[in-house]
Amino acid sequence: MARQSFRNDYSEGAAPQILQALEATNLEQTVGYTEGDPYCERARELVRGVCGQPDAMVEFCVGGTSANLICVNGLLRDWEGVICAADAHINVHETGAVAATGRTVLATRDDDAFVSVAEAERVWRRQTSTGRHMTLPRLIYLTNSTEFGGVWTRERFDALCDWADAHGCCVYVDGARMANALVAEGNDLSLRHIASRAAALTLGGTKNGLLFGEAVLITHPRLKEAFPYLQKERGGLLAKGRLLGVQFQTALEGEEGGEGEALYWRLARHANERAAELRRGLVELGYEAFSNSPTNQQFFTVPAATGERFCEEFGCEVFDRLDDGRWVVRFVCSWATERESVAEVLELARALKR
Amino acid sequence: MARQSFRNDYSEGAAPQILQALEATNLEQTVGYTEGDPYCERARELVRGVCGQPDAMVEFCVGGTSANLICVNGLLRDWEGVICAADAHINVHETGAVAATGRTVLATRDDDAFVSVAEAERVWRRQTSTGRHMTLPRLIYLTNSTEFGGVWTRERFDALCDWADAHGCCVYVDGARMANALVAEGNDLSLRHIASRAAALTLGGTKNGLLFGEAVLITHPRLKEAFPYLQKERGGLLAKGRLLGVQFQTALEGEEGGEGEALYWRLARHANERAAELRRGLVELGYEAFSNSPTNQQFFTVPAATGERFCEEFGCEVFDRLDDGRWVVRFVCSWATERESVAEVLELARALKR
Amino acid sequence: MARQSFRNDYSEGAAPQILQALEATNLEQTVGYTEGDPYCERARELVRGVCGQPDAMVEFCVGGTSANLICVNGLLRDWEGVICAADAHINVHETGAVAATGRTVLATRDDDAFVSVAEAERVWRRQTSTGRHMTLPRLIYLTNSTEFGGVWTRERFDALCDWADAHGCCVYVDGARMANALVAEGNDLSLRHIASRAAALTLGGTKNGLLFGEAVLITHPRLKEAFPYLQKERGGLLAKGRLLGVQFQTALEGEEGGEGEALYWRLARHANERAAELRRGLVELGYEAFSNSPTNQQFFTVPAATGERFCEEFGCEVFDRLDDGRWVVRFVCSWATERESVAEVLELARALKR
Amino acid sequence: MARQSFRNDYSEGAAPQILQALEATNLEQTVGYTEGDPYCERARELVRGVCGQPDAMVEFCVGGTSANLICVNGLLRDWEGVICAADAHINVHETGAVAATGRTVLATRDDDAFVSVAEAERVWRRQTSTGRHMTLPRLIYLTNSTEFGGVWTRERFDALCDWADAHGCCVYVDGARMANALVAEGNDLSLRHIASRAAALTLGGTKNGLLFGEAVLITHPRLKEAFPYLQKERGGLLAKGRLLGVQFQTALEGEEGGEGEALYWRLARHANERAAELRRGLVELGYEAFSNSPTNQQFFTVPAATGERFCEEFGCEVFDRLDDGRWVVRFVCSWATERESVAEVLELARALKR
Repeated sequence: MARQSFRNDYSEGAAPQILQALEATNLEQTVGYTEGDPYCERARELVRGVCGQPDAMVEFCVGGTSANLICVNGLLRDWEGVICAADAHINVHETGAVAATGRTVLATRDDDAFVSVAEAERVWRRQTSTGRHMTLPRLIYLTNSTEFGGVWTRERFDALCDWADAHGCCVYVDGARMANALVAEGNDLSLRHIASRAAALTLGGTKNGLLFGEAVLITHPRLKEAFPYLQKERGGLLAKGRLLGVQFQTALEGEEGGEGEALYWRLARHANERAAELRRGLVELGYEAFSNSPTNQQFFTVPAATGERFCEEFGCEVFDRLDDGRWVVRFVCSWATERESVAEVLELARALKR
Repeated sequence: MARQSFRNDYSEGAAPQILQALEATNLEQTVGYTEGDPYCERARELVRGVCGQPDAMVEFCVGGTSANLICVNGLLRDWEGVICAADAHINVHETGAVAATGRTVLATRDDDAFVSVAEAERVWRRQTSTGRHMTLPRLIYLTNSTEFGGVWTRERFDALCDWADAHGCCVYVDGARMANALVAEGNDLSLRHIASRAAALTLGGTKNGLLFGEAVLITHPRLKEAFPYLQKERGGLLAKGRLLGVQFQTALEGEEGGEGEALYWRLARHANERAAELRRGLVELGYEAFSNSPTNQQFFTVPAATGERFCEEFGCEVFDRLDDGRWVVRFVCSWATERESVAEVLELARALKR
Repeated sequence: MARQSFRNDYSEGAAPQILQALEATNLEQTVGYTEGDPYCERARELVRGVCGQPDAMVEFCVGGTSANLICVNGLLRDWEGVICAADAHINVHETGAVAATGRTVLATRDDDAFVSVAEAERVWRRQTSTGRHMTLPRLIYLTNSTEFGGVWTRERFDALCDWADAHGCCVYVDGARMANALVAEGNDLSLRHIASRAAALTLGGTKNGLLFGEAVLITHPRLKEAFPYLQKERGGLLAKGRLLGVQFQTALEGEEGGEGEALYWRLARHANERAAELRRGLVELGYEAFSNSPTNQQFFTVPAATGERFCEEFGCEVFDRLDDGRWVVRFVCSWATERESVAEVLELARALKR
Repeated sequence: MARQSFRNDYSEGAAPQILQALEATNLEQTVGYTEGDPYCERARELVRGVCGQPDAMVEFCVGGTSANLICVNGLLRDWEGVICAADAHINVHETGAVAATGRTVLATRDDDAFVSVAEAERVWRRQTSTGRHMTLPRLIYLTNSTEFGGVWTRERFDALCDWADAHGCCVYVDGARMANALVAEGNDLSLRHIASRAAALTLGGTKNGLLFGEAVLITHPRLKEAFPYLQKERGGLLAKGRLLGVQFQTALEGEEGGEGEALYWRLARHANERAAELRRGLVELGYEAFSNSPTNQQFFTVPAATGERFCEEFGCEVFDRLDDGRWVVRFVCSWATERESVAEVLELARALKR
């Protein structure tokens, strides 16, 4: 593939600053397992800071599935379940990872990748109708930005959190693409606000310019106790833990003089901007957007032949094949996507419209 | 700590060649999850080559506990168990990771970190005495080099494999420090021979100069089917899988002209040589070795006060506190350990003898 | 409650013949755990006989959830899943028992408690679209009679089995109320035919006049190996196993001269007949049946006030509360339901219609 | 086998009073699942009474393995472990049932089936030496009477409970043969005292004259929340729950005028008395007792040929085959063992001594 791929936001290695930091610290000797090395300690401080949660626990995972399964497992007891949207990552894309820890996923019928209060309520009613004969819902799983690139508004988020509070449920926010949501145009939900209401949340690194890594902010007492042990027990603890600390420190540290924006936000902004250019261009050309996404994932409904060309030339994923024969294809921009590459997509899109 | 630490072999980042390779390939775009990128494919070929198993499956894990729990889980059915030494990593150092997948660890009474035929037989007899009322042993777990730095001889290994064959058991070799065993002075067991008898084995990278990573060679049909799914399900699949491929390719690729020794073996040889210098020096000074180790871990039984100083100055771990008040301390050398650092240990050791 | 309850078919103890047989054999000493006592051996022979499967394994469980979780667990590997209807017992009424064994339930959108080929296909397509990143469907769970009292026709059953064969899936038939299905008016599916296509099936005793117990017929080699161990491991093995043997022998043994119908079928026939009387009576009175059930469970859609009275007077369960305010109530008849009791229901029903 | 078997205490059905009670209540209709029927409610009251724990939860299981796995699972979090003796039922005789729920069994080296404070301490020290890298012990499992027929003294029990209190551990008492311990000659430990210190305990019915059933007394808040759900989730909930209530009510209800001893104790006393006769007789004949058992299980070390005869004639189990060629055989007496049968054993024993 000579051209840049829009397949996903983890096709490249890491942002150069990340690699440089790993190199600069390479020969230092530190204790392992994220257990007290100065990089992890500093990164913890930074995560607590951006989340406005000075007393929270911060841990680091290598990947998202690992973070998800540990958090869901740790927030639930053996007979409890997690409510999520039908298309939630934990429901369809993680090979039953939650069930493999013995917990049950309770999918709603929401088809837009958000969890609605109405559907949460429906599931909850059904599941509590015969007491112990059914899995008890005690957690809501949501992603921001969502599987379809959407962004939670403060109103929507608070309504769900209010419902959760009233029904003895916690909220866990999978933030594999949290940075993209937070810097999205029109976003009105702050990380501090999310953190103030969630039992736990992740800040994704893998899809935002780190080699790998997800920071996990934990405010719920039960998960604070559970996480360290579960992380080891589930094989999710990195021996050279400081690699995670170095990366998150680099990503979140303010720039010289403390005046600039941290790398973490700049990388996400870059990806969103390229995606916005792509979206504007395609819409202008008359292409039909499949979902309302102000973030780095863009979904378009196109004729199959068009979709095929996009896939061939730009590595797009076919997200769905509709009954009318059209395809939903996904373009993902990353911190590394170049303006020229977007232009190339639009050029092809223009040609295919003729 | 101004001085170099002998705490373990994963205190530093990675060998410079590894980092360089990651940098050189950083901006390339590849498919994720180790699923077909050229680096993983080449690394797979190299692992198959050094193991002499052209038809084996080769997969890559981020860490050892993850590799262990996937392999043990995948080689056993729900009601089966794995025989291992009392001090085996899976029995004491992995927080019940095997039980967390529903399988049972059946520890022998061997106290030297090897599994003896006699003890395997004893466990097997007990566990098969009342049929389904007991966990059925179907796998033997061993490590090479062992938890105490020992190296399996061909005779010992074959005797255990013969026993396993005769009792319907498979053998899984945890090779977190396999390279150190294979290049150890006096070693008579080849990787090819191990691979020819094991259902699966790992080649450790984390403790041998990679940033992270374990290659897993799989010859057993059941595990070939299970591994890919289990790896995802257990949260052990790295999104940017090619990072593992790049590292293992770099470690195992022969040098220019194919005449040199691959980096993987040179790094282990370096660590073993430093450890041998340390051992010789301490023995000459009258220190008492705790175990017979020709590899990069050295255990010495010392007065508590001496042990304390070694820990303070060189980050040693206290491996045991004996009833007579003495300590067993562990020194671990790595690819990065310098000759001068060994000299510094010996200098202190000499001073403490006076 | 002076009147007979229609709450369910396990409100009473056991049919008198069952209790008599337990008494008659009470002081005999036998080996435990169903492992070879003459009653279990004879009952096994009878089950194999009625199923036409001379080589099948037959085991006995105390309850249905236990049988279901053992069979589903044993027929699937860790990363595999079971397809079932949305209202399937394992999906909603067993508190996540399948997930607790690490397997995933994949519910279709079928809303009539049958599994349709179209929905099985839809689930299968989605779940196999990205390989190991999703739970692999390998089993179909169905119940006969269904949760809503329906009966599988031979055509419907064969179509699903054909689909399963073509997609590498097995079929497991939960027969908690199998007898009611098999003796139902219009039924065209034989136990022999079901057994010839299913990997395993159960013949329920608890809901058909035994004190407790489900016989499990197993034809699938993997489950033959797994069942005995899993049954013990999951706590599902009865110490005084012969109690199960005595009961199933009594239920299935032909009568004197071998000319009569075995108790097992007569008890189910009795329950179905009472249910048919109830159904005919209610329909004649203008009540609206909710589902097409020729078996011992009858569902009727009634005004809330009517539903309340049925619940108060006859212990009915409210199966659903519809959006239009009406209720779906369930009447269940058992081997012990008397004709007079049905008449009493109809009397009330008539009064409520005025 | 014309003669009475001494194989175990669950070879027969149930004490006649139990069967009569089941018959007398057979046609009554009750709600299912032990959820509120009058028999279970009364039996709960009786269990709370004999245990002196008016606020405890009382639930009923069909079998011991089911009760054990639910209690151990419910008292531990995913990464925690249970300390028990090497020969503990959960360690060797339940096919990895605890591991199947994801928890780890931590066996001590105690070889007398008691758990000593010294060994508990040793295991605890090892397991807490590296924090989250090891399974955290949080529960002690013990049986009374023990696997070898022994009885916990108050001193021994209190010492272990004191240790547990001081180390953040709970105590769970498997009372499959609790009645035999409590009525044993010389016993100084009361059920009330055990209940006052244990997080949970069971009162076995299966081995003491019931058809089946274990009552579980739960005082620990975590298990009170967990038990009802886990019981369903693990397949351990009996549909016709009242069968358990009827049996335990019958066993524990005081006799006319409240002056007699409840059936439960009388049945155990009968078994113990027969066992004492057997023991005295064998010792007088010069046979060597293997363990100090004042309860209904008696272990004797005998020449192999003698052991063989005992097994043939009286269904004894070979408990161990010693290195010197002798066997340890087990005789178990039950509520149904007759004095004449003991005499027959002694007659053979005398003959074999000649």
